[in-house]
Amino acid sequence: MAATIENPQKPDEAGLNDLVALVADGMKRVNSTILSRTGSDVAMIPEVANHLIASGGKRLRPILTLACAQLCGYVDEAGKDGDVKLAASVEFMHTATLLHDDVVDESDMRRGRVAARIKWGNEASVLVGDFLLGQAFRMMVEVGSLKALDILSAAATVIAEGEVMQLAAAKNLETSEDAYLAVIRGKTAELFAAACEVGPVIAQRSEAEQAAARSYGMNLGIAFQLIDDALDYGGTSTELGKNVGDDFREGKITLPIVLAYRRSDEEERGFWRRTLTRGEIRDDDLATALSILRRHGTLEETVARARHYGETAKAALDIFPAGPVRSALLDAVEFCVARAH
Amino acid sequence: MAATIENPQKPDEAGLNDLVALVADGMKRVNSTILSRTGSDVAMIPEVANHLIASGGKRLRPILTLACAQLCGYVDEAGKDGDVKLAASVEFMHTATLLHDDVVDESDMRRGRVAARIKWGNEASVLVGDFLLGQAFRMMVEVGSLKALDILSAAATVIAEGEVMQLAAAKNLETSEDAYLAVIRGKTAELFAAACEVGPVIAQRSEAEQAAARSYGMNLGIAFQLIDDALDYGGTSTELGKNVGDDFREGKITLPIVLAYRRSDEEERGFWRRTLTRGEIRDDDLATALSILRRHGTLEETVARARHYGETAKAALDIFPAGPVRSALLDAVEFCVARAH
Repeated sequence: MAATIENPQKPDEAGLNDLVALVADGMKRVNSTILSRTGSDVAMIPEVANHLIASGGKRLRPILTLACAQLCGYVDEAGKDGDVKLAASVEFMHTATLLHDDVVDESDMRRGRVAARIKWGNEASVLVGDFLLGQAFRMMVEVGSLKALDILSAAATVIAEGEVMQLAAAKNLETSEDAYLAVIRGKTAELFAAACEVGPVIAQRSEAEQAAARSYGMNLGIAFQLIDDALDYGGTSTELGKNVGDDFREGKITLPIVLAYRRSDEEERGFWRRTLTRGEIRDDDLATALSILRRHGTLEETVARARHYGETAKAALDIFPAGPVRSALLDAVEFCVARAH
Repeated sequence: MAATIENPQKPDEAGLNDLVALVADGMKRVNSTILSRTGSDVAMIPEVANHLIASGGKRLRPILTLACAQLCGYVDEAGKDGDVKLAASVEFMHTATLLHDDVVDESDMRRGRVAARIKWGNEASVLVGDFLLGQAFRMMVEVGSLKALDILSAAATVIAEGEVMQLAAAKNLETSEDAYLAVIRGKTAELFAAACEVGPVIAQRSEAEQAAARSYGMNLGIAFQLIDDALDYGGTSTELGKNVGDDFREGKITLPIVLAYRRSDEEERGFWRRTLTRGEIRDDDLATALSILRRHGTLEETVARARHYGETAKAALDIFPAGPVRSALLDAVEFCVARAH
């Protein structure tokens, strides 16, 4: 299918296509599971949940769960749909996080649509998020793997910790690169890691393979978030589903800023303090911010860091035998990193 | 210990004392488990969690879990602390709900203290709630009972559904008694039911006993909430830890209102529409509301409804052999209902 794609000289052309094709059957079942499990007699629940879920997104996380299970030769015994249910659980956990994040960030937009909290209120975002988390755990229980439950429930706490860390570090320009990495390991990469790790777990593969899949997911997740951070200062709003400069307007200290602040002169530091710490933002400040980031080359550097984590993710897959699934997972890394170009 | 307490002619004198004494050892371990499981390197998490958890409350839900396990002869094999961990999980689920409720209700006070969301912001309340939910599931996984996990994860979704139903019914004076009961079954009674049901489950007792414990908890929970509703128009703020009239000021349609609205004349209906639906509340409106409720006798009637559910709760325990634990559980019902006097 894709023998040439594993060649590192020819990255990111096929993008996610091979991976998507390999798990297409499973994703159909994931999508119908998502639809049926957002059902509720309480009409507002499917309304709010589907507003967000139906608005798309790549469903990268459930795809990773299915692919890692497939990579490890998971066989669905007696139609239990273990991989499908865990994949849907992972997507529900992700959606719950997005709903709660919107309340935390006071966001107006999400995935190019009005945020649920604007349309239905903070209340609905909080409660429908809670409902989806509950449904996620119910599906995991149905799968019946205590190890998978352990991994995903631990992930739920680590994600919340990462978000709280981000809150505590908010507007703090002294945030170090290490501290920032700890935040994104929690808030983003942990769910990628868990999504991948449960694949070998339900396929009952060795701890070494579980750890390898986890490492792939963790490093891919870090790369993914760093690229998102760079895109927030350079992507186009149609590509991203949100406007360029959101992080800037919200005073979020992301890696491009962490790196730039340390190299900034006194005048530039004054600019960062006024805009990001004090939140006094004028019309042309985003343009100024971009020019400072470009002057210090920190967007390129953020992408370079992402590439490093991407390489680590790819290396983690070395212990698995070559084949179309492994190739497609390697491609997925290239796809994530290449988004920044 | 308490042979006379089972005598229905002598209710509520001992209150919760017997129940508290019977589970005292377990509750010590529950409390230290709560303390250790709110620990996090992220300092804000224990701060926020303990602000609420340390402010007390009766810990009725974990007490019920321990008591129902004890009633069913649960033996802690190899120090796994199954009952203790499930009890702590139940309290974490409850605390998470309170944190998220404060955001939903925009509350300023909780248990007589400033609400966490006022002190740390909505963000912290949402995220620390999520952290506690994650920790609750981790503890359940450690206990290793898939049935208990199933019951408590289902409860998490039902609670969220109940809260969303309440949201959808908010300010709607046409809410029927049935619709209101559906709301409180979800938002309050379901966790009482689950807290009780997991006792016989981990003691590996029959389905009939699981169902009986669940019915006890469900009906006790309904009674508990109805009494809370009545207290909100009649308790004193020191007893309740929140001010009389909170529900009124928030436009909550509780049973005393549901019953009164149907009996109100046109002028009174106009009053309810202005205050509860439109939220235009003046200084002496709470006094007027109280006098309308008293005129229609709906506070007493709400307490009578609570007493009915309390009797159903007590009858559910008939299949268990008489003894100090069953006696104390019967007392607990009286205690809950008697709070309204």
